Amino acid sequence: MNEGDYREMNVLALDTSNRPLSVAVMADDQVLATTTVTVNQKHAAQLLPIIEELMHTAKLTPRDLTRVVVADGPGSYTGLRIGVTTAKTLASTLNIELVGVSSLAAIAANVTTDQQLVTVLFDGRNDNVFAGVYRIVDQQPVAVIADQHIAFEDLLQKLVALDEKVVVLGDLDNFQDRLVQQLGDHFVALPAVWSLTSAAQVGRLGQALPPVTDVDAFVPRYLRLTKAEADWQKQHPEEDHNDYVEKV
Amino acid sequence: MNEGDYREMNVLALDTSNRPLSVAVMADDQVLATTTVTVNQKHAAQLLPIIEELMHTAKLTPRDLTRVVVADGPGSYTGLRIGVTTAKTLASTLNIELVGVSSLAAIAANVTTDQQLVTVLFDGRNDNVFAGVYRIVDQQPVAVIADQHIAFEDLLQKLVALDEKVVVLGDLDNFQDRLVQQLGDHFVALPAVWSLTSAAQVGRLGQALPPVTDVDAFVPRYLRLTKAEADWQKQHPEEDHNDYVEKV
Repeated sequence: MNEGDYREMNVLALDTSNRPLSVAVMADDQVLATTTVTVNQKHAAQLLPIIEELMHTAKLTPRDLTRVVVADGPGSYTGLRIGVTTAKTLASTLNIELVGVSSLAAIAANVTTDQQLVTVLFDGRNDNVFAGVYRIVDQQPVAVIADQHIAFEDLLQKLVALDEKVVVLGDLDNFQDRLVQQLGDHFVALPAVWSLTSAAQVGRLGQALPPVTDVDAFVPRYLRLTKAEADWQKQHPEEDHNDYVEKV
Repeated sequence: MNEGDYREMNVLALDTSNRPLSVAVMADDQVLATTTVTVNQKHAAQLLPIIEELMHTAKLTPRDLTRVVVADGPGSYTGLRIGVTTAKTLASTLNIELVGVSSLAAIAANVTTDQQLVTVLFDGRNDNVFAGVYRIVDQQPVAVIADQHIAFEDLLQKLVALDEKVVVLGDLDNFQDRLVQQLGDHFVALPAVWSLTSAAQVGRLGQALPPVTDVDAFVPRYLRLTKAEADWQKQHPEEDHNDYVEKV
């Protein structure tokens, strides 16, 4: 895949952070092969076969890879662990670069307009959401409100306060009526395809970011405590709370 | 897949019109599974296995499909024939709806902004291009300059005359310098991922169009005569020239 002295960045990008499973193999900005599945998927069982198939299609071996990019959250605990563990294992085994990209930013990156804010939200149950608000600057999503776990009503008030047109993507089913009611003309909806994660966007964003310095210490951005974590923190008030996953 | 009386539109969408091979299985606006390959692909050998695999993943049988949508040109003769023949065969065998979508419009549909025109071009060799110019209205590409085979310099003058910002997607390698030179600030580039066709967009656009009335008579929009066609027309000046493919 090389031309002369120029060394391509061969990237494996993956997102298993939520219901969809998406994998892409890229050479620099070119997508060689990509698959996204949103139904009947079992991330743990399907991720490696899909990676192998796409690599085979792209005629790349693991040794050809120079970087792994993974959507590192927020999302489901199980999905994030599968994606992040797979990415860490590959980066560590192959001694290649690892980059994490926000699962919310990756969806915001589907939008091309710089005229409107982009909010992406995942349903966090009990009327909570995981959400991030972005502005697209030179096709890179720049956080206006950082990714967080937040009561939907609180997010709504923040969006009202921004007083700008905002494209809202993600899990809208439980929230669209209130978005329309509170934001009126400032609420912009797009067809469902733009709410679908694309590992090609994960890979594109991850190529523009510096790799993590300590692959072993890399953990998902859950953005929410599990009950187990909350209990553990209560019992260990003196401990550093950022390394729960490493300890459990 | 049904809920109550509501009958979903189960759509198989495919684009083999150019180098990429893209297939999507959708239920209404939801993408169930999709794959896009841009390298080492052999459309004739890979299209059916990929369709079968995605249908299997989506747990759909051919009998569940209600519509086939195919990118029907412009593009390579061989690629278009494979895609259109496959789509026609499925529609005819399964007695389901068939819709053709412009290969250029499908790529224009990747863009979300309604503030800028979108031009998509494919390299037609000898400094000619296949090109269409669109405005995105309610997320549907509406033709401002109809898809056509045109000398690049002539297209460039049309774009200059439009005197608006224009996103240019597609095969830019041989044309970007002149676009920048002639259009200046009116030329808007996007990262390569937006120039990649997505069968999900083909499927989305095809769901909004009426099905063809005569499946058997459906032919690709080549937009250019082959040498064989041109010779045939010279020898048969009295014939209807729209049915070359049917006759050969």
